[in-house]
Amino acid sequence: MKINQFAHLQLTPEQKAHELHQIGFLNCDAQNDPDLNHIWLQFIGLALPHLKTFPTKEAKFKTLLASPTQNILEYSAHETVDLDSFYLVALQLLGFEPEVDFAVAKPVAEMERLGLYHASSLDERMQLIGAWYDLLCTFTKNGQTLLDQLAAQGYFTRFFDLPAIKKPLFFNGKAQPIFDTRTLIREVVYIESDLDTDGDGQLDLLKAEIIRPRDTEHGLKVPVLYTASPYNQGINEALADKLMHPANVKLTHKTPTNTTYDEIKYHASESLEAERRTVQGRSTRAEETFSCEKSYSLNDYFLARGFAVVYAAGIGTLDSDGFRTCGSTAETASTTAVIEWLNGERRAFTNKTDNIEVRAWWCNKKVAMTGKSYLGTLATAAATTGVKGLETIISEAAISSWYDYYRDGGLVVSPDGFVGEDADILAEECFSRRKNAGEFIKIADKWQEALAQITAGQDRKTGNYNQFWDERNYLNNVQNITCDVVMVHGLNDWNVKPRNVYQLQEKLAQLPLKHKLILHQGEHIYINNFQSLDFTDMMNLWLSYKLYDVQNDAAEILPDVLVQDNVTPATWTKYTTWKGPKKQTLYPTTAGELLATPTVGQVSFHDQLSEAEFEMYQSDLTAWKQDIVREKQTPLSETRLLFKTPELTEELLLSGTPKLTVKVASSVDHGLLSAMLVDFGEAKRLTQKPVLLSPKAIALGYDWRQNDLVEFKLAPKTKHKLISKGHRNLQNRTNLWQNNDLVADEFYEVEIPLQPTFYRLPKGRQLGLIIYATDMTATLRGNEDITYTLELADCHLELPLH
Amino acid sequence: MKINQFAHLQLTPEQKAHELHQIGFLNCDAQNDPDLNHIWLQFIGLALPHLKTFPTKEAKFKTLLASPTQNILEYSAHETVDLDSFYLVALQLLGFEPEVDFAVAKPVAEMERLGLYHASSLDERMQLIGAWYDLLCTFTKNGQTLLDQLAAQGYFTRFFDLPAIKKPLFFNGKAQPIFDTRTLIREVVYIESDLDTDGDGQLDLLKAEIIRPRDTEHGLKVPVLYTASPYNQGINEALADKLMHPANVKLTHKTPTNTTYDEIKYHASESLEAERRTVQGRSTRAEETFSCEKSYSLNDYFLARGFAVVYAAGIGTLDSDGFRTCGSTAETASTTAVIEWLNGERRAFTNKTDNIEVRAWWCNKKVAMTGKSYLGTLATAAATTGVKGLETIISEAAISSWYDYYRDGGLVVSPDGFVGEDADILAEECFSRRKNAGEFIKIADKWQEALAQITAGQDRKTGNYNQFWDERNYLNNVQNITCDVVMVHGLNDWNVKPRNVYQLQEKLAQLPLKHKLILHQGEHIYINNFQSLDFTDMMNLWLSYKLYDVQNDAAEILPDVLVQDNVTPATWTKYTTWKGPKKQTLYPTTAGELLATPTVGQVSFHDQLSEAEFEMYQSDLTAWKQDIVREKQTPLSETRLLFKTPELTEELLLSGTPKLTVKVASSVDHGLLSAMLVDFGEAKRLTQKPVLLSPKAIALGYDWRQNDLVEFKLAPKTKHKLISKGHRNLQNRTNLWQNNDLVADEFYEVEIPLQPTFYRLPKGRQLGLIIYATDMTATLRGNEDITYTLELADCHLELPLH
Repeated sequence: MKINQFAHLQLTPEQKAHELHQIGFLNCDAQNDPDLNHIWLQFIGLALPHLKTFPTKEAKFKTLLASPTQNILEYSAHETVDLDSFYLVALQLLGFEPEVDFAVAKPVAEMERLGLYHASSLDERMQLIGAWYDLLCTFTKNGQTLLDQLAAQGYFTRFFDLPAIKKPLFFNGKAQPIFDTRTLIREVVYIESDLDTDGDGQLDLLKAEIIRPRDTEHGLKVPVLYTASPYNQGINEALADKLMHPANVKLTHKTPTNTTYDEIKYHASESLEAERRTVQGRSTRAEETFSCEKSYSLNDYFLARGFAVVYAAGIGTLDSDGFRTCGSTAETASTTAVIEWLNGERRAFTNKTDNIEVRAWWCNKKVAMTGKSYLGTLATAAATTGVKGLETIISEAAISSWYDYYRDGGLVVSPDGFVGEDADILAEECFSRRKNAGEFIKIADKWQEALAQITAGQDRKTGNYNQFWDERNYLNNVQNITCDVVMVHGLNDWNVKPRNVYQLQEKLAQLPLKHKLILHQGEHIYINNFQSLDFTDMMNLWLSYKLYDVQNDAAEILPDVLVQDNVTPATWTKYTTWKGPKKQTLYPTTAGELLATPTVGQVSFHDQLSEAEFEMYQSDLTAWKQDIVREKQTPLSETRLLFKTPELTEELLLSGTPKLTVKVASSVDHGLLSAMLVDFGEAKRLTQKPVLLSPKAIALGYDWRQNDLVEFKLAPKTKHKLISKGHRNLQNRTNLWQNNDLVADEFYEVEIPLQPTFYRLPKGRQLGLIIYATDMTATLRGNEDITYTLELADCHLELPLH
Repeated sequence: MKINQFAHLQLTPEQKAHELHQIGFLNCDAQNDPDLNHIWLQFIGLALPHLKTFPTKEAKFKTLLASPTQNILEYSAHETVDLDSFYLVALQLLGFEPEVDFAVAKPVAEMERLGLYHASSLDERMQLIGAWYDLLCTFTKNGQTLLDQLAAQGYFTRFFDLPAIKKPLFFNGKAQPIFDTRTLIREVVYIESDLDTDGDGQLDLLKAEIIRPRDTEHGLKVPVLYTASPYNQGINEALADKLMHPANVKLTHKTPTNTTYDEIKYHASESLEAERRTVQGRSTRAEETFSCEKSYSLNDYFLARGFAVVYAAGIGTLDSDGFRTCGSTAETASTTAVIEWLNGERRAFTNKTDNIEVRAWWCNKKVAMTGKSYLGTLATAAATTGVKGLETIISEAAISSWYDYYRDGGLVVSPDGFVGEDADILAEECFSRRKNAGEFIKIADKWQEALAQITAGQDRKTGNYNQFWDERNYLNNVQNITCDVVMVHGLNDWNVKPRNVYQLQEKLAQLPLKHKLILHQGEHIYINNFQSLDFTDMMNLWLSYKLYDVQNDAAEILPDVLVQDNVTPATWTKYTTWKGPKKQTLYPTTAGELLATPTVGQVSFHDQLSEAEFEMYQSDLTAWKQDIVREKQTPLSETRLLFKTPELTEELLLSGTPKLTVKVASSVDHGLLSAMLVDFGEAKRLTQKPVLLSPKAIALGYDWRQNDLVEFKLAPKTKHKLISKGHRNLQNRTNLWQNNDLVADEFYEVEIPLQPTFYRLPKGRQLGLIIYATDMTATLRGNEDITYTLELADCHLELPLH
């Protein structure tokens, strides 16, 4: 167990005393009290908000050890609080258990071991006060600060009724839960966009769900966390499944072309000239409310802290107008429309018919976007418009270019396991507007046409980058971004692959903006409930700064690049860049080695399985993932080449985009190559998914929602682990939009950039390179009779290193 | 998808109109309105509580189909509501999606197919009103009634402020969520027991956490759902793990005895004469509150409906006095103490030192106990005392005799997978009082002594039934039960095995009480969130009857025995008894058959694995579970005998306790036999765990907690499934407390009762019988060189059938 807190502000003793006073932890008497024990016991007593009387608090004092043999009362009767007694009690208040989580005999050393901030001297009154201040900011065993835990127990309930003018409240630079979530206001508005994606001659109205503190009714203006989620109003899972494209499709020869980028570059079409509705009246009240919203728990946390939350699903979703377009510029405009309304620059109505305008009069005009996957993607998309009012985005596991989601290297390549999915299927899946069956029957035909256009545009035939994908490439517009950006991504995310975030941060690095990157060891997950990392606190520091203008040094305090270690659990390390400054080149050999010196020779593999094997692997992708890597004989052994380094004599820290260069011949006039980097060596590695440590242990406020506490743990030993992979159509050697020729049995040089990685390979492990063609989890599955031959003299692997 | 609702009361048209009027769905005008469409549209409008204005409701009308080509407004302009239009709209209101979940063209037939109640005529006003009434009681796609869904959307919020005298409110015999859960009162009291389990000369005080509706402050007396959960205040998982007993222990010869039951019968010791505290004052207010309780979602549901909830963890848990004793009579007394306090017959204090008495003045003195596993066990234990005020228990997956949890047939047999666990370990695990470290240091030695007594009492050496286990056998006291009982158990629960509930219900059948039994296809789970069953509604009907005296025919309406089918998903069938009236005897043959006619011959197996195999199976119990059943050669093939019937020509419905009789010789002077019944035949079977259909889809009230919607689905095909199993020490042929002699290589007749089952074996399947010795998931693992030989002429399997 190890705690990593990055959002901890170091303040002067005077500042600390002032803030403690503000939250009611220090009255003037205590501040001048010469009796250290007296101050200490008063602090502890105040930290028991669920106990309302002196006898109940005293009973609790008796249950807490202040020395290995005495409880607090016994200890304080004869001795004065010191570092040991202070931190022994502190550890218990933080929920760590004596002898189970820490050794009673050496509390300060245990604070250190657990990664918890602690003072080094407690002789003075101000030192004690300072130590208590820091303790309130310290993580409990349950992944939140002690002050947050006290808040969950009711500490701040007496602040609920403070006048709006005294809110919000910041402590250690972060907004505190002094807002009563039991009285939140929930309302729906319909925002008029500039779009008419369903072509009915009417500007599309977009439903937005707003949750705001009651205090906004009394003059408080609040910022907004806005989550654009196309899934939020429901999905059409069964219908989308039915549309799934066939996966067992053979690759074909692509007619050579000389297409230039300019030919496939996306140009925005003329802006629409549909008429705006005529305002028939104004209201400050909504006519519609909602309940049981599909919330993001990070947003819930901020609802208790003086932020409003807005959910909007966008064009073509339930109760909104328009059609889904999957990543188009229209979708981006439908996303930014909400921000424009919040910022006072766009109209919304109380219902869809009467044109009664309603404004975001309760908003301070500052907006941050949050959410993961498609949600984070739309945040990224919105940022690339430079829309006013969007102060920052926290973009998690987000797509930066849809080509990098559904394609790779001139090939149809699906997100992990979803072979057959594509942009049109996602459009259908999110087209929740069709759930309004009485409305859908009037637009069903037009929707089929719109869907057919997406199907045509995405072009599963060539797998090439084209105008459709160029429209959906947000990287083209990174230079328009005006807000600071936080990015979070899983290094094992094979759904939205790491290239998406890598390319975005590379482009952001060229702009005069702050950007923060957090890379974790998860797959496609949220990270706001880990025991080892104060992600939520970091975001609180960030958003208090960005949306409430709190001068808390957030931009300097938060690490630029924070990476979770893949070897040691609960370890997060700061870096300045993702891309390592060093480089190493390795060469595959005919003997299956991967060496530092060039070599010669030819090696081949044959990309076809028997029908039975082919069937088996399709129905058991886990078996495929295992067998493609296994050294012992499997049906896949002949369909791949495996190269391994000797056991490493020194640790390697791969960081950046590995690139494989090969000279290859296909036995037919078409072909593809895939490549995988693998960590070989029997070892305990982190669990694939976070382990549930304690259900509902993280309370997001008082009598409010809760989150599960999780952490990656060491799993039983395994022999290997995937580090990275990549794919390339052999006819896309020049770029992704132009078809090169391919003649059977002729050799061509091809570069295959793999997905960017950040991977520590300890001493004793072996780095493996697997070269193969069909990837059952990702590429189309032609199962064709093709032999690929590599000319090793012209093959090498380039590794970026830290 | 299929819905099974059992808690639906059929009422007269007048009663329905009256109740609709009560909940505000029918005003006097509507009741006399001759225009059916008018009534219908008014109903639908009222069923949209989140829409506050006419335009927003009208917009919603346009989104609902009333015929395959018309929305409600279009339809009602020209046609009158009829069965088709009513149920087409109804299905949409219930959340079923046109063309996805049902065919638009035939709504009435689709209601029927989905298992939803519907009218057969709608010509009259009262028929329409009646149909609407029933629709409000009908399950949505999300596993709760339409009225519950409306409540979650805010339908009942205007009832929150009704005077206490007008509460609670019942609809269709069930309590409705008209209580504001945002204003619940949470308080802690300390109940004085008659126990002194830690021997400190003071009667043990027991902490109880109370949650009650605010309305109790204004005169409402409410009943209590009481959950006694030893886990509730935290557990000592790491410490308990360290105590785990060695699993790889060889069986030894037990010295023959003639012990009689009377010799091991438990006799209560003299009751304690410790002095009661002297009351120093009285209060109606608590001094301590709490937050984030570990709640059971069924209790949460009732908190919105006019019930209080009490959680108590009992002796030896955090903030209570005493020691854990794992199932003892003291533990039972610590459980009933809470009920006695609620019933006014025991004292509680506001804190642990000042002796200020506090009464349960807000309680109507009626209590039901709820909870699963240990929680349900304590409910059962409490019921067997006949304690006054306990009106019913809902006992889920409960232990009825601790011997049947940690032992079987004179053997140490662990709950599935937890080999090495025992009563002492569970006592340590639940001894959360030790988390109060300042208190624990004073009692640590005494606790070690108490724990050592449990270790001695449980006697892992012989595995026999003794006085320790007799004290912990609640079946001995079933005749004292005075309350009606609801039992719920999983037919695949290998943690608390089905024998526990089977024996309880057999004993209950001899008493003049109502008892209801629900057997599901799960393992050790709760069932209050299944799409296919209205379990929560059934419990609402039951508790409204038992705790609020509502005359709703609950005792007659709820099925006596309800069994979830193991072949067809979402199918629940009523029976009158568990034990089938028919019987069939099968005989194993030397050829591995299981036939209807007796046979002769000897067969043997050898219960020893190589060290490597033994290691492997210990670290991979799943592999053991697979291989022990597999027909193809595995390391386990020689360690078991496998017999199979021919493919069944007719379906078999096993129901009750299968019993295997064998004549067996061990090659040494000790030994055990295990037996398994297995369903053979490639087929899709239900998933082992419920599948998550929709997270947080079940709202337990307005702005209140939520539950996930789940259901068992058909999983990919498997070749076999475990039906039942059992174990026997060959020296416990007469009973469980007497050691019979065993001479090596001599034959003895032994009966092995397997766990009771309720299992449908379709035509074409084969019933398999596996006879073996060491069970890696359950028995100790001696891995000894023993050969067992069976004399088949004296072996047979007796099956109870329906």
